Amino acid sequence: MRQAGRYLAEYRDTRAKAGSFMGLATNTDFATEVTLQPIDRYGLDAAILFSDILTVPDAMGLGLSFVNGEGPKFERHVRDEASVALLKVPDMDKLRYVFDAVTSIRKALNGRVPLIGFTGSPWTLACYMVEGGSSSDYRAVKSLMYQRPDLMHQILSVNAEAVAAYLNAQIAAGAQAVMIFDSWGGVLADGAFQEFSLAYTKQVLEKTTRTHEGQTIPRIVFTKGGGQWLGDMTALNCDVLGVDWTVNLQRARALVGDRFALQGNLDPMVLFADPASVAKQARRVLDDFGQPHTGTGCGATHIFNLGHGINQHTPPENVATLVETVHEYSRQMRR
Amino acid sequence: MRQAGRYLAEYRDTRAKAGSFMGLATNTDFATEVTLQPIDRYGLDAAILFSDILTVPDAMGLGLSFVNGEGPKFERHVRDEASVALLKVPDMDKLRYVFDAVTSIRKALNGRVPLIGFTGSPWTLACYMVEGGSSSDYRAVKSLMYQRPDLMHQILSVNAEAVAAYLNAQIAAGAQAVMIFDSWGGVLADGAFQEFSLAYTKQVLEKTTRTHEGQTIPRIVFTKGGGQWLGDMTALNCDVLGVDWTVNLQRARALVGDRFALQGNLDPMVLFADPASVAKQARRVLDDFGQPHTGTGCGATHIFNLGHGINQHTPPENVATLVETVHEYSRQMRR
Repeated sequence: MRQAGRYLAEYRDTRAKAGSFMGLATNTDFATEVTLQPIDRYGLDAAILFSDILTVPDAMGLGLSFVNGEGPKFERHVRDEASVALLKVPDMDKLRYVFDAVTSIRKALNGRVPLIGFTGSPWTLACYMVEGGSSSDYRAVKSLMYQRPDLMHQILSVNAEAVAAYLNAQIAAGAQAVMIFDSWGGVLADGAFQEFSLAYTKQVLEKTTRTHEGQTIPRIVFTKGGGQWLGDMTALNCDVLGVDWTVNLQRARALVGDRFALQGNLDPMVLFADPASVAKQARRVLDDFGQPHTGTGCGATHIFNLGHGINQHTPPENVATLVETVHEYSRQMRR
Repeated sequence: MRQAGRYLAEYRDTRAKAGSFMGLATNTDFATEVTLQPIDRYGLDAAILFSDILTVPDAMGLGLSFVNGEGPKFERHVRDEASVALLKVPDMDKLRYVFDAVTSIRKALNGRVPLIGFTGSPWTLACYMVEGGSSSDYRAVKSLMYQRPDLMHQILSVNAEAVAAYLNAQIAAGAQAVMIFDSWGGVLADGAFQEFSLAYTKQVLEKTTRTHEGQTIPRIVFTKGGGQWLGDMTALNCDVLGVDWTVNLQRARALVGDRFALQGNLDPMVLFADPASVAKQARRVLDDFGQPHTGTGCGATHIFNLGHGINQHTPPENVATLVETVHEYSRQMRR
């Protein structure tokens, strides 16, 4: 999940200098600076590119802006035959600022920790493109999906191709692992999830570079609210499945077997408790997964993470407690 | 789910006469009128009491109001030792308007269809009581839960007792089945769900009357977002498990066996499609469950329902299409 953010004073300082969220994301120096802030502060084991999943529909010409306190807004939305017909894979040059940031961050990290690139899933991007912003009920996107599945599939095909090209360019620029965020897969009905979300995540994975300069690029797929479909997700050609806090890690591990690592899944709201409770809940997550296998391969490995994004009001000192606890306790478990 | 609502013109008329949502819910004649409106219009197979889950915390003295477009608000919230210590099971006389409505609706229904009473689950009520209204991130209630589980358990104990007394009084007044809505159980982490939600739903069921005037009172438990915990829920002493649209009915049926009927689970957003698509999706839900058993008992029975509440913008004619399709197609399946 995004590690940098408003909960950090140093982020707020850079954000103020940048003037706007997109001002921050599109400026190579600022994006590099904020990506490294949590690495410097907490000694995390990997860095994740500071950016936003909506850069891709923005590059498609939908006109993205972030209104303070209201979340993302698009000037144009995609809801009918005419607007769907206009959609196409954007020129990756319009996203050069992202790839430049990747290269700059890799340089700044100088081998300290690996850098994860990311994208939204085709379905999750489509939610924003059809709704024109955030939604509480997904009425517009679901109306289109149930009424005109053909148009929905057209949008998703364009998105899958765009997203694969976007990840490939991130990998070419230096991303050492990539993550696909299906943040809104979990709002779909059973059946619709497989048809409108999972099938297109699969397409993205098929079209994404598997290795770069001799190195395998691990692929992580995270579906918020997708715990019930973990069995379906084992058909994906990826290395890691990210899960939210509703998932029982022991059962999930038994289900996915040795073929996938699991990433997750502390409830971000745990970080509002006292330090002792934060430590207790972190150990509980590690215990739920249990002893990692010591064999080779990605499977049966646990990557500790939050189950979703960090809240802007999170006390930063609790994140320090969390990172320390995870480091100490997992070392202890491996002994 | 609530059948009456703003999507019906006749409801909006009664609501205008009542002046406010609580004016509607607390007036026996109005509550009777709106409960029967969807029965008259659609020929549904059961009626559900028109009320709100927040009547119970209101009777506890928290001061409920509904601000238009903003949802429920409480004047006082429960977040610290002092406010938790003040909590107690409300005098059921303060909820007499609900029981009077139940009796009046039974009389007005005159045996046409059975009447379902309902309550919020202890956890779901606690969410509103701690947050002071709706929430997007459940920060206050989860902070309390992770930091002071003792206080959380105290609130939930009071709620469980209050909710059982509330259901018993509804049954005494004439409710022929009861439903517990755990609308926010699904926001909890695995582990926390079992400890803070399921355990208290269990307490409510233990304390609720099993029969009335020689008739068994069927008990329905619905947890929004609880599909992953269906296995845990089979420990509940209830007859029906309600599931949202993310649940695969075939798998759910295999999991719960013959001991429980399943209720659900059409995505309410299907009702924004064209009539042919509405009919197709309704048949799909019936097909997912499959042929009902013809033996005795509640188990292996499917109660068709929406997977959650109906949206206020729903075209009423699509609900007619839905009810007709379910009636025709399920008759066809049983032949």
